[in-house]
Amino acid sequence: MNYSDNYSAMNREALMQAVQMRMSERRFTHVLGVEETAVALAERFGESPEKASIAALTHDYAKERSDEEFQLAIEQGDYEDKKELIKFGNAIWHGLVGADFVARELGITDEAILNAIRLHTTGAAEMSLLDKIIYVADYIEPGRDFPGVEDARVIAFSDLNQAVAFETKHTLTHLIEAEKPVYPKTIETYNRWVAGMK
Amino acid sequence: MNYSDNYSAMNREALMQAVQMRMSERRFTHVLGVEETAVALAERFGESPEKASIAALTHDYAKERSDEEFQLAIEQGDYEDKKELIKFGNAIWHGLVGADFVARELGITDEAILNAIRLHTTGAAEMSLLDKIIYVADYIEPGRDFPGVEDARVIAFSDLNQAVAFETKHTLTHLIEAEKPVYPKTIETYNRWVAGMK
Repeated sequence: MNYSDNYSAMNREALMQAVQMRMSERRFTHVLGVEETAVALAERFGESPEKASIAALTHDYAKERSDEEFQLAIEQGDYEDKKELIKFGNAIWHGLVGADFVARELGITDEAILNAIRLHTTGAAEMSLLDKIIYVADYIEPGRDFPGVEDARVIAFSDLNQAVAFETKHTLTHLIEAEKPVYPKTIETYNRWVAGMK
Repeated sequence: MNYSDNYSAMNREALMQAVQMRMSERRFTHVLGVEETAVALAERFGESPEKASIAALTHDYAKERSDEEFQLAIEQGDYEDKKELIKFGNAIWHGLVGADFVARELGITDEAILNAIRLHTTGAAEMSLLDKIIYVADYIEPGRDFPGVEDARVIAFSDLNQAVAFETKHTLTHLIEAEKPVYPKTIETYNRWVAGMK
C-alpha cells in the first residue's frame, strides 16, 4: 500500500495497536480484512487510500463496549431522534455512536472518516464515495462467508452503487426473515439505492 | 349481519352506492369481500360490526383518484412529513390521504373509522382493534389468492396481533423482493408487531 507522508507506516502501526487493544483477535482479523478491501476499493474508484485505511481500521473500534456505555453516550450526546436510537442495540450503536468514541479517544477529526464509520452499518440515502467503500468493504472482506458473497465481491469492484444496493437488499431480507428490528435509516438507504427513489 | 338503528340497512345501501360509483366492478367486489371479513372479525373479537362495515366499505373509496388530485390534497392538507409523503404514490396515498376524501365527501366523522382507513395499507406501531381488523381483512378477504393466504385466514380468526405480524412480514418481504419503495411507517409497524420492539 502507498501512503502519503501524513499517514506514514508508523501512524498506521499506532492506530492498529490502539484498535487491537479494544477487541478480540477474531474481530481484529475482520478489521484488517476490511482495511485491505477498503484500500483496494479506494484505489479502484479514486478515493484516498489513507482515509480508507483509517476509516476501515477504526470502523468497529467501539463494538465491544458495553450497552451501558453506549446508553450513557446517547443520553449525553447530540443525536437525532434519541428516543428511537436508545431502543436499538450494539448493531446500530457501534457505528452511529461509536464514531464519537473514535473522535474522542483516537483524536480523529476528519469528518469524512467519522461519517463513514457512522454509516457503515445502516448506510444512508446520501453517501460519499468513502461511505460506500467502508459500507461495502465491511460486507465483502475476505473473512466473510455467506451465500452470495462472491457475487457481492464481483459487483463491488465493477459498480459500487450496485454493490450498495445488493448489500442493502440482502441485509434487509435477512433481518426480516430473522424478525430482527430494522433501524429506520436502513429503509432510507433501501428506498434510495434499491428502489431508486430520489 | 345485525346492525344497530344508527346504521340501518338503508344507510349501508346508500354508502355502498356512493362507493360503487367511484370504482371498477372488480374493486367493488374486493370492497364487499373486505366488509364481509371485517364484520366477521368484529364479531369474533368484540368490535362494533357497524364501524367495521363502514370502514371496510370506504377503505378504498379514493383509490381510483388521479395522482394530481392526491398531490393537491397533500400540498393543501395537514400531513406529517409532506416532503416524504409526496414522493410515494397511490399505494400509500389512497389510505393515508384518502381518509380525508371519505370525511369530506361522505360526511363520515368518526375518527376511529377514519384512522382505520388511514392505516389500512401501512399499519402502525399503535393500532386500535378496528385498525387491526381493517388491515387484516383487506389482506385475507375471500377474493385474495396468494401463497400463504389460507394460513393468514386461520391465524386472523385465532390471534389478530399475530395476523398483523404475519401480514406485515409478508408484505415487506414482497416489497423488497420486488425492489419497491417502503413507506417508513411500514417499518414502525414491522418493528412493533414482527420484531416485538416496544
